[in-house]
Amino acid sequence: MQFLFGFFTRNKELNDFKRQLKNVVGFSPNNIALYKTALSHRSVREGADENNERLEFLGDAVLSSVIAHYLFRKYPYKGEGFLTEMRSKMVNRQKLNEIALKMGLKKITFYNKLDNALKISHIFGNTLEALIGAVYLDKGYAKTQYWVEKYIILPYLFMEDLETIEINIKNKLYGWANKNGKLVDFITMEETVESGRRLFTIAATVDGEVIAQAKGFNKKDAGHQAAVLAIEKLSL
Amino acid sequence: MQFLFGFFTRNKELNDFKRQLKNVVGFSPNNIALYKTALSHRSVREGADENNERLEFLGDAVLSSVIAHYLFRKYPYKGEGFLTEMRSKMVNRQKLNEIALKMGLKKITFYNKLDNALKISHIFGNTLEALIGAVYLDKGYAKTQYWVEKYIILPYLFMEDLETIEINIKNKLYGWANKNGKLVDFITMEETVESGRRLFTIAATVDGEVIAQAKGFNKKDAGHQAAVLAIEKLSL
Repeated sequence: MQFLFGFFTRNKELNDFKRQLKNVVGFSPNNIALYKTALSHRSVREGADENNERLEFLGDAVLSSVIAHYLFRKYPYKGEGFLTEMRSKMVNRQKLNEIALKMGLKKITFYNKLDNALKISHIFGNTLEALIGAVYLDKGYAKTQYWVEKYIILPYLFMEDLETIEINIKNKLYGWANKNGKLVDFITMEETVESGRRLFTIAATVDGEVIAQAKGFNKKDAGHQAAVLAIEKLSL
Repeated sequence: MQFLFGFFTRNKELNDFKRQLKNVVGFSPNNIALYKTALSHRSVREGADENNERLEFLGDAVLSSVIAHYLFRKYPYKGEGFLTEMRSKMVNRQKLNEIALKMGLKKITFYNKLDNALKISHIFGNTLEALIGAVYLDKGYAKTQYWVEKYIILPYLFMEDLETIEINIKNKLYGWANKNGKLVDFITMEETVESGRRLFTIAATVDGEVIAQAKGFNKKDAGHQAAVLAIEKLSL
């Protein structure tokens, strides 16, 4: 509690925080200090044990596991390549940041509002991952799994839409290049043998510079995945 | 059970499998069919719902989450960069394959023993991930967490050793290059701003070809991580 009283100067502030937090997450948190850390960007708290970066590391892994299990159940006959691709569409930076904003995380995140660089970054998506880490430590895996499915996947991730994105992803990149006088290309960086199959590393390049690369057991999959990453990176 | 009887032609074979499996994992599995799938490489079962690739996808994520939580607890004052690096040292392909072999997974894995390409790949590490996926579905997260810590981390991952690896990792790469008449270099591929900080992408190159790349909030971390990945890729 010492930590909390150090941060919230008045009891009213603490109560306001609790109420807003409950509104956003939809349940009553036990360990408030944990959520406080999860919602504190390093721009206001430098210490590794005080800002949300460690919890982001944890929450990112927990989210990845929850999503993996969700996809495993939802698509019982799809291969690992499809599952991996769907997950990367669900949990990329851009997407998580959008979800975090829709959930209202911006209102309860503590960050330096004068820092303009933060405005173009994905700090709310990162904060959402940290929040998942806090829920996991506070409530355990099973409840976190239920919470992520009910409050993140169900309302914000439309699986049928995500399934169809794949078709046009390279075209989106070519379209952007065309409009902006850039040259997009896909090149094979490497070809190895993995588990008895050929494994390709394909890079998406813009004007000859490697923007993103990805691996796959065929060039189509790897190229597609590289395009997904490139689009994410270019914030298209 | 139909699946099991289709695979094990005699009851004795099924019982032998159960016994060997129990010896390796250290507990009595409930859903034997699940473990059977986890231990079946695609070289003997083509169907996505019959070989272990889907379970590998799931187990990889669950393992990553368990390791993240373990590191989070073990190093309460270390930052996210350190935790990420430690995890990548713990769960890289080479390491997992070594652990799988020590655990005796080779004996109970079903794969095409005539396929020479499999000998140089990391199929047992992949199988271990699939096995973790099976344990998770069979026993739940909490028991899997306990099992991974007791049967994988404790006996095979010596944290103090892993902590010190970092110091010499670039030297190891330079040493290899020197011996083999190669030229190793580290180049900055990209520099962006992320969460208000500069984010660097550093590539490790061998004779001008990009072998691996990594991101970091300073060049040292990113370069180090690129070296770790390059060493893994080159199987040094």
